[in-house]
Order: sequence, then C-alpha cells, then structure tokens
Amino acid sequence: MSVNYKMVLEYDGSRYAGWQRLRTESQTIQGKLEMVLSRYAGMPVEIHGSGRTDAGVHAKGQVANFYLEDKRDPEEIRLYCNTYLPEDIRVLTVEEAPLRFHSRLNARSKTYVYRIEMGEKRSVFTRRYTYGLGKPLDLERMKQAADYLIGTHDFKSFCGNKKMKKTTVRTLMKVEFQVSGSELAIRYTGNGFLQYMVRIMTGTLIEVGLDVRNPETMPAVLEACSREAAGFTAPPEGLCLEQVRYGS
Amino acid sequence: MSVNYKMVLEYDGSRYAGWQRLRTESQTIQGKLEMVLSRYAGMPVEIHGSGRTDAGVHAKGQVANFYLEDKRDPEEIRLYCNTYLPEDIRVLTVEEAPLRFHSRLNARSKTYVYRIEMGEKRSVFTRRYTYGLGKPLDLERMKQAADYLIGTHDFKSFCGNKKMKKTTVRTLMKVEFQVSGSELAIRYTGNGFLQYMVRIMTGTLIEVGLDVRNPETMPAVLEACSREAAGFTAPPEGLCLEQVRYGS
Repeated sequence: MSVNYKMVLEYDGSRYAGWQRLRTESQTIQGKLEMVLSRYAGMPVEIHGSGRTDAGVHAKGQVANFYLEDKRDPEEIRLYCNTYLPEDIRVLTVEEAPLRFHSRLNARSKTYVYRIEMGEKRSVFTRRYTYGLGKPLDLERMKQAADYLIGTHDFKSFCGNKKMKKTTVRTLMKVEFQVSGSELAIRYTGNGFLQYMVRIMTGTLIEVGLDVRNPETMPAVLEACSREAAGFTAPPEGLCLEQVRYGS
Repeated sequence: MSVNYKMVLEYDGSRYAGWQRLRTESQTIQGKLEMVLSRYAGMPVEIHGSGRTDAGVHAKGQVANFYLEDKRDPEEIRLYCNTYLPEDIRVLTVEEAPLRFHSRLNARSKTYVYRIEMGEKRSVFTRRYTYGLGKPLDLERMKQAADYLIGTHDFKSFCGNKKMKKTTVRTLMKVEFQVSGSELAIRYTGNGFLQYMVRIMTGTLIEVGLDVRNPETMPAVLEACSREAAGFTAPPEGLCLEQVRYGS
C-alpha cells in the first residue's frame, strides 16, 4: 500500500530550464527532486507539481506530491532531500497527505509575485529576483488597468501557448501593488494561470505604467482573445510562485 | 578648489578580495570604484572608505568620500557609477560634504549584522548572505555571553591582527538578537571594530550557543588579551556592514 506525501519547497530558478522534467540534458527542478527521492526510496519516484514554472522563474512556496511504497518519517524525507539537493532548491516541509491529494488538481488558488526595479540599478542582494526595468512607473494607471483584469475572463490574450486547446478562462481574484523604495512588487492571486500569463499581464501593466498604453484599453485587450493585443512578456527572473492554497 | 563628496553604497562581497585596493590582480570594491570615478573625472580619484571590509563580506550601508576638482551634480555621479559599476556594487546616494568630512575619521558608530542559518539548509534566496551553521543555538546563553562584551574593553582577544600596534580598546554599545524562522541575525553596534572582531565575537557566541563554552567565561576571554582565548572566526559570507553613523 502506498503513502502520499505533500511537499512545500522553494527554489532559485536562475539556472534551471523550469519545473518540468525534460527528455533533454537540461536541468529541471522536477528532475532534480525525482533523482534524489528515487535514491531515497530505492526505486523510481514520480513527483507532481502544483504547476509548471518556466525557465528562470523562482518559487517560495511550490507544492508537490509523490507516493512512496512504505510509510516513512516525513522529517527524515525532508532532511534527506535537503542534504542531497543542490543549494538552490530547499524543501521547507514534508507531510503525509490523504491518498487522493493531488497538488495540481486540488489547488484552489495560487499567488505569484512579480518584482520590478524602477530605479537605475537593482539591489545587489535581490538582483537575481527582480526585473531591472530602470524606469519609474505610474502606479495609479497600473492599478486602474489591473482592475479590468480582476474577475473571471477568457485570458486567451494573455496566454503564451498559441496552440492551447483547453479553456483559457480563469478567475483572477486579486492584484496587489506594493512599493518598497524603488522596487515594485505586483502580487497576483487567481484560481489558475495560463502559460506566461503572469508575465504577459505584467508586461502589459508596465506598458500602461510607462504611459505607452491606456488603462481603458484593457477590456478590448481581453475581448480580442489574441496574444498580439496584450503587451510584452516580462522576463522570468522577476517572477516567483509564492503560495498555493488548498481546501475550501 | 576641490569638492568633497560623500557616498553610501551596498555591495555583494562574494567575489571580491575585500574593500581595500591591492597591488595584486585581485578585485576589490575600492579598486572598482576608483576605476569608475577616475574615468568620470578624467583624472585619478582616490576614495576613502569608512573602514575595510574583509574578503567575502557584504555591505548595505558602506560610506566613502572622495574629492573632485570641480563641482558636479551628485545625482549625475551616482548615475554614472551605477551605469559602469558591476551588478554587485550599487551606489545608493551621493551628496556634497564639508571639505573636512572624512568617512573613517568622522565615523561615530557602525552597525554590523551577522546572519546564521540554524536549520539544516540555507534559504535559496539568501544563501550567499548567511552562514550555514545547520545547528540550533541556545539564544539565552548567547545573550548572557554577549552582555559581558558590551561596554568599553580591550578587545585584543577578538582581534585577527596579532601584530596590531595601535590600541585594541573599543566600545561595543549594543548586541541585538533577532530570529526569523530558523535564521538568527546578530546586530553589533560599536564605535569601531578591529580586524575580524565581529566574526570572532560571532564564532565565540556560537560556541556558547552550542554549549561547548560557558557564558561565564567571557570576562576571562576578554582579560586574556590573546586571540587563542576566544572562539573561531565565523566565515565572511554571513557578515554585512549595515550602517555607519556620523555627527554628534
């Protein structure tokens, strides 16, 4: 009888080709984790993430689950992983979960944070985790634009995958802006996000904040259901998966 | 007539041989700054730091001063430096200072922070700026030991330079402990610090926190006036010069 484990982890995505294991030589977070867990279990272990993060994207609270044949001490699993995983991946918690728990299918909402440096140079301590825009942004305009995005919409215009066959309807619950010095953090909470969705929303909001796009055009951008209607894809280094929530 | 400028800067010391310019090929913070400022001024510029930071030590608020022959816009200097300095050195502010202002001689007090990860692995986001001790520490014992260090003492036992000819008497005004998750930050404020002094105090406090040294032995460590009496030198990566204060 197998046992299901839920794991919360953080990673610096800088040197990875993203979450998802690939057939190529590329390094991935999933690949690294499965390698270590399989060694721990003495047999192949597959790990299911709450979602894929793109190449170069970070996580502070990614959630994953995996099955082991025997009951093991969750703290032992955590210590084993942290000993053998590289410095840029850290397991925060491991706990036993109900057999039916699935990190992706059961996720109720996710929060992503995108960090932008508006000053001429990024902080030396957080430079790997912020986008170095180097220009001031008009926050009031950005908030106005973000308000149009909140709610349930077809976010096809904000989807990087043009061949997406499944529904592109998502619910964006909250967009929060937080300024600390010359750094702006935009925090997005939604029931799910399409490929590049947060980065395209951010790129579009940046264009609004730079005054090259009007906040009032946002409904038209949504209605267009076309990637070309939205703004640029903000680079991966500013993005971090902060939290995944479960339960009702 | 020359003009004196005061500069506040931050740096990630990881890849540097410390603050002080060296005759060797090594990279130093002072060397980098002088190279950029000299190019800006069109003539050699010498920069005076509030103190040397060792190889691998970071700064969030290092202060330096330098003279230019002509009056220049401080904001222009700042932008020029940030454009040409590498990513791991950032100038926070530049302002004109009285001609007699000297960043080292006029410093009234300094605050250093030493960060220790007590959990089995360092946060992926701050791993370059914390010491990965990986063991729990008894804070009460450490605070007890730190109390003995506060005040004006001969800190010769905590001086890395055994050939130090000048006075080793210093005043340590405050030692504060701050825990956040499994990370401990020890914040030292004093009127000046000897070579390696913060790192040796930290190493000694860690030994107390690990229960291999008694807090009550601290007066004897101070009285010994011998490097051998104190604990190990904690590694540079956990140390950061946080603030330098001037004025009365």
